[in-house]
Amino acid sequence: MNEIKSFASDNWSSVCPEIMEALTQVNHGHMAAYGELDEPVTAAAIEKFKKYFGNDIAVFFVYNGTSANVLGTSHVIRSYQSIVAAHSAHLNEDECGAPEKFNGSKILELETEDGKIRPEQVLPFLNSIGFQHHTQPKLISISQVTEKGTVYKPEEVKALVDFAHAHNMYLHMDGARISNAAVSLGMDFKNFTVDVGVDILSFGGTKNGLMFGEAVVFLNKKLALDFEYLRKQGMQLHSKMRFISAQFDRYLTDELWKKNATHANKMAQMLSEKLQQFEQIKVTRKVEANGVFAIIPKEVLPNIQKEYFFHIWDKNTSEVRLMCSWDTTQDDIEGLVAVLKKWVK
Amino acid sequence: MNEIKSFASDNWSSVCPEIMEALTQVNHGHMAAYGELDEPVTAAAIEKFKKYFGNDIAVFFVYNGTSANVLGTSHVIRSYQSIVAAHSAHLNEDECGAPEKFNGSKILELETEDGKIRPEQVLPFLNSIGFQHHTQPKLISISQVTEKGTVYKPEEVKALVDFAHAHNMYLHMDGARISNAAVSLGMDFKNFTVDVGVDILSFGGTKNGLMFGEAVVFLNKKLALDFEYLRKQGMQLHSKMRFISAQFDRYLTDELWKKNATHANKMAQMLSEKLQQFEQIKVTRKVEANGVFAIIPKEVLPNIQKEYFFHIWDKNTSEVRLMCSWDTTQDDIEGLVAVLKKWVK
Amino acid sequence: MNEIKSFASDNWSSVCPEIMEALTQVNHGHMAAYGELDEPVTAAAIEKFKKYFGNDIAVFFVYNGTSANVLGTSHVIRSYQSIVAAHSAHLNEDECGAPEKFNGSKILELETEDGKIRPEQVLPFLNSIGFQHHTQPKLISISQVTEKGTVYKPEEVKALVDFAHAHNMYLHMDGARISNAAVSLGMDFKNFTVDVGVDILSFGGTKNGLMFGEAVVFLNKKLALDFEYLRKQGMQLHSKMRFISAQFDRYLTDELWKKNATHANKMAQMLSEKLQQFEQIKVTRKVEANGVFAIIPKEVLPNIQKEYFFHIWDKNTSEVRLMCSWDTTQDDIEGLVAVLKKWVK
Amino acid sequence: MNEIKSFASDNWSSVCPEIMEALTQVNHGHMAAYGELDEPVTAAAIEKFKKYFGNDIAVFFVYNGTSANVLGTSHVIRSYQSIVAAHSAHLNEDECGAPEKFNGSKILELETEDGKIRPEQVLPFLNSIGFQHHTQPKLISISQVTEKGTVYKPEEVKALVDFAHAHNMYLHMDGARISNAAVSLGMDFKNFTVDVGVDILSFGGTKNGLMFGEAVVFLNKKLALDFEYLRKQGMQLHSKMRFISAQFDRYLTDELWKKNATHANKMAQMLSEKLQQFEQIKVTRKVEANGVFAIIPKEVLPNIQKEYFFHIWDKNTSEVRLMCSWDTTQDDIEGLVAVLKKWVK
Repeated sequence: MNEIKSFASDNWSSVCPEIMEALTQVNHGHMAAYGELDEPVTAAAIEKFKKYFGNDIAVFFVYNGTSANVLGTSHVIRSYQSIVAAHSAHLNEDECGAPEKFNGSKILELETEDGKIRPEQVLPFLNSIGFQHHTQPKLISISQVTEKGTVYKPEEVKALVDFAHAHNMYLHMDGARISNAAVSLGMDFKNFTVDVGVDILSFGGTKNGLMFGEAVVFLNKKLALDFEYLRKQGMQLHSKMRFISAQFDRYLTDELWKKNATHANKMAQMLSEKLQQFEQIKVTRKVEANGVFAIIPKEVLPNIQKEYFFHIWDKNTSEVRLMCSWDTTQDDIEGLVAVLKKWVK
Repeated sequence: MNEIKSFASDNWSSVCPEIMEALTQVNHGHMAAYGELDEPVTAAAIEKFKKYFGNDIAVFFVYNGTSANVLGTSHVIRSYQSIVAAHSAHLNEDECGAPEKFNGSKILELETEDGKIRPEQVLPFLNSIGFQHHTQPKLISISQVTEKGTVYKPEEVKALVDFAHAHNMYLHMDGARISNAAVSLGMDFKNFTVDVGVDILSFGGTKNGLMFGEAVVFLNKKLALDFEYLRKQGMQLHSKMRFISAQFDRYLTDELWKKNATHANKMAQMLSEKLQQFEQIKVTRKVEANGVFAIIPKEVLPNIQKEYFFHIWDKNTSEVRLMCSWDTTQDDIEGLVAVLKKWVK
Repeated sequence: MNEIKSFASDNWSSVCPEIMEALTQVNHGHMAAYGELDEPVTAAAIEKFKKYFGNDIAVFFVYNGTSANVLGTSHVIRSYQSIVAAHSAHLNEDECGAPEKFNGSKILELETEDGKIRPEQVLPFLNSIGFQHHTQPKLISISQVTEKGTVYKPEEVKALVDFAHAHNMYLHMDGARISNAAVSLGMDFKNFTVDVGVDILSFGGTKNGLMFGEAVVFLNKKLALDFEYLRKQGMQLHSKMRFISAQFDRYLTDELWKKNATHANKMAQMLSEKLQQFEQIKVTRKVEANGVFAIIPKEVLPNIQKEYFFHIWDKNTSEVRLMCSWDTTQDDIEGLVAVLKKWVK
Repeated sequence: MNEIKSFASDNWSSVCPEIMEALTQVNHGHMAAYGELDEPVTAAAIEKFKKYFGNDIAVFFVYNGTSANVLGTSHVIRSYQSIVAAHSAHLNEDECGAPEKFNGSKILELETEDGKIRPEQVLPFLNSIGFQHHTQPKLISISQVTEKGTVYKPEEVKALVDFAHAHNMYLHMDGARISNAAVSLGMDFKNFTVDVGVDILSFGGTKNGLMFGEAVVFLNKKLALDFEYLRKQGMQLHSKMRFISAQFDRYLTDELWKKNATHANKMAQMLSEKLQQFEQIKVTRKVEANGVFAIIPKEVLPNIQKEYFFHIWDKNTSEVRLMCSWDTTQDDIEGLVAVLKKWVK
């Protein structure tokens, strides 16, 4: 078959060679199935997380981002408590109702142009506190990188955390693209999570070179009590755990996460810059991570998508999303630009 | 670290080399993340299933056996309908309440010595039909191989299917070890599933050499309508689908499933035979697949478990379960026997 | 204790004497607990519903409006399907997440100034059809009377029904104040429900003189299949059913519903007219049923609320809601006006 | 219509005149809908509960016994925690799966001849503690009176409470017939609840003369935190609360509960004694409250049921249940006996 070239999403890409090598390395002999009994691969992976986030955390591996978000938030709220999130949040828009199904909780949506929530937007929901007819806001969930391609600065996260804690709420971060955010900020993970008080983190890797697996990281460790039961009941306990653990162990070794994310972000910058040459194409959002949002004339889209697949973000405005990945090459970008030249004036 | 040698479970084993090779082979370029848009690896894997089960099926990949069982059964019943299963069924005993949580359905339990259900045991539950205070039995779930190591004969499955269909119920088969069952019976998968009318099948591979992934196979295809939404809402849609698909494609090629299961079953037979030499050890159940159940004197268990890990099935009777896997070697068995000789008279 | 006089809500009122008399009349001897075995009171009440809505319906009594809405809608959708409703809908705003909890379904919210939904507002949600990451819109729920005091005209309901049916969706009507709507329209219930194709109706009475109880009426009768089990599992099967049935039997006899609602609506008109005399008070919405919305100067509210309780609808604009009931008297209104005169210039 | 005479269940009876009078008395003027704002009827009813159970409790009214049991238990456990109950418990057998649906929790069933659980039966379930594949036993639920007509002695309840608390579990009592139990024991409610450490109580009245309503009483008050939200989300907040409250206020005044239950229990004793005269009828269980269980020859049952309705408890053994109520008369009993004489030798 022919290779498909795409800017569709960073999970259209393959597994990076270092991760594949790690999977091969760990593939020998018998190990405790679920990571129990001090199974060494899982223990080592958790140690790596502690190097980055400090010792006072609890780490649990699950299969994917949906479940990391749903289980991590569900564990700390009751069904009559609600989650405040951006309307555009993956948790709200793109999980086919998984949060509502699993925990029975309502999501209170906020409209936001750039994908970021501000404390003053959450404020009106507090009117519901103590009113038995309304769900009780208990958790704010943000995405880092946001679904609009923007990155929260540490002080922006801190403002939300402080607001949440002041009102007896928690702060959850969906870090499906946390490595791209760290690279974008030029910071350690810790700086915009532990250091500013984030309670629960979904730590993703599949969009940056892993095969499968995501980590629920309780930075507020006491919230993790009994989470292993919720994970199992949530159908997210892997029975050959070492194969998730080995990936994260490698991902957090020799800054592999940074290498991959740096490349992806750089490709997005390059792409963004090359789009400047087209008068008819308008980059619509600041490129802060590995996604480029741009308006491309509607009439040429079918022709371009024949050669490079990508998602149309907004049919009305003809805004598209072009995602770069750890494996996007300069040739891919130049190829796309060549196609654009053919069709766009 | 030292290699652990174990008879704990067939998911303590590693990934068989053919599967690892298939994962490597498919690791190149971009592909549609979720198996959509005719992504070729997933399409090919589904074709393989059709070769074994016929064209009139629908196949969906999920992450593990828990979710295959829970989602496959939940999709075809309403919350006020109930599942009839053996008390010992994995679905009932070992999912930490996942079926009750996800669908809100009750499981009606049956006691069974050999892990198999008979139609006459289900009969009394039908008294509840039409009585609004009771859940309405709608599905019978059986395990093939059962949790007690036994294998349903096709006519036994057919009797249950006929009973189920006669009473407007469905028949679900938990096939976590379906390959071991097929080898034990000397039959094709089809003979004891499609041919006898099974409606929904959880088709497993992780216990027989895969890394992760399980298939929900709707043999009664019309039951599959809209299942993709339940899978997503059930947090079981993988975002790099090809890596599950590639495993199943290989698993169902050149009868890899049979090679692995044949070996595991043979090792269990060998182990069972070698245990005959010990007067103090009693093999408690007929060895029909890859598990050996035996009573070993309680006082020697700690010493033996220092060298070979396995699960104690019943503390009171000192019955243990010794599972063989695709990678169990004759040396492993002889090693265990040597240890037994040291401690058991 | 002193009588409280209030315009808070129509459920602050007592039970109308005819209903209390009906409860007394039926209080003798033994009857089948759950309405089964042709228990005569329940059978008679259902017959009354058929006189109003036609024979091709199915009627089930539950305890309250929350459950009528939640169970009636849950029964016809799966968890991955979603409900489209006005943001202001009781179902969305005032059930403390009961719909999400019971069925696991997402509610897709629409902003609407007057509480009414229009088909063109629902249209964008259809983009999600067939996209597995999004919940699948399956039901439109409207309130008649709306939470903003407005009343749908039959042709407005029909437009929504036609839209729903054209897209394989259902139309549910929350009729907590359906009698007030019928009186407002000068029509029979049938004209704006059965005749225009409504599928499921929550038929309320507690806000118009009943003590407890609400009816789930499946106008699309085939949707009712097995609803008795969902009602029981939903904790809504009353064990002395005759006492709900007797109320509805009486409510639908000699047009008691109309007498009560006519009075309540008339009182609201009177109140609205009397408010015209205050330059500083602005009636903000057309008074179509038994609720009056008005802006009253913020600084005088505490003084007025000392004598007449009512709910402040919008703190920012100082809009209040004044509800009239079957038992609101002309004296109550004149009393309120007198208090207003004391404080408002 | 003719009066039906029945021994079917104590909820086939009507509302006792004192309760009907109380409902009439409270039916005037406006009151806060949900019992909020110190609504006086509800406040008074709660005070009555405190007279019986002490001040350190929290009381919430709901509609029925199903919801009292389901919400009271759900509030104190997480979905992965389980309830231990007798197989015959109403919570397990007769709620159409309501506990599983609402909380997603598994019920661990115990077989018991007399309807009572003993601590040693619960013990084996503790093997699951700490094992992530199993639900975690967290609550023991008992029925007082049991479904088999027996009554726990205080020391039997205490033994279960002590066991529960020693293992970090709670004890819930389903008191649908708690008044009959108190009369049977000749004790105050307190003696076999608060005094022996019961945590949560479903306090019923409908089976002893009320029209509707049940109370969830948190004897362990700190467990009640936020229960109002669960009640609302559980669709159990009544919007004319005073009409439940007034019933309980009256029920707990002048020992009305005791008068009614004493009568019902006495009638059951009388019936039981009169059945002794029939050689072919065997009273199968000790009559401790208001139910009589007896084997009546199978062939005569249809004839007898034509005149007096009752439930056949066990088709195989021809055991029937004859329930007496607050309104069962000596004539009813003699009438039944006369019919029996006609058909039974």
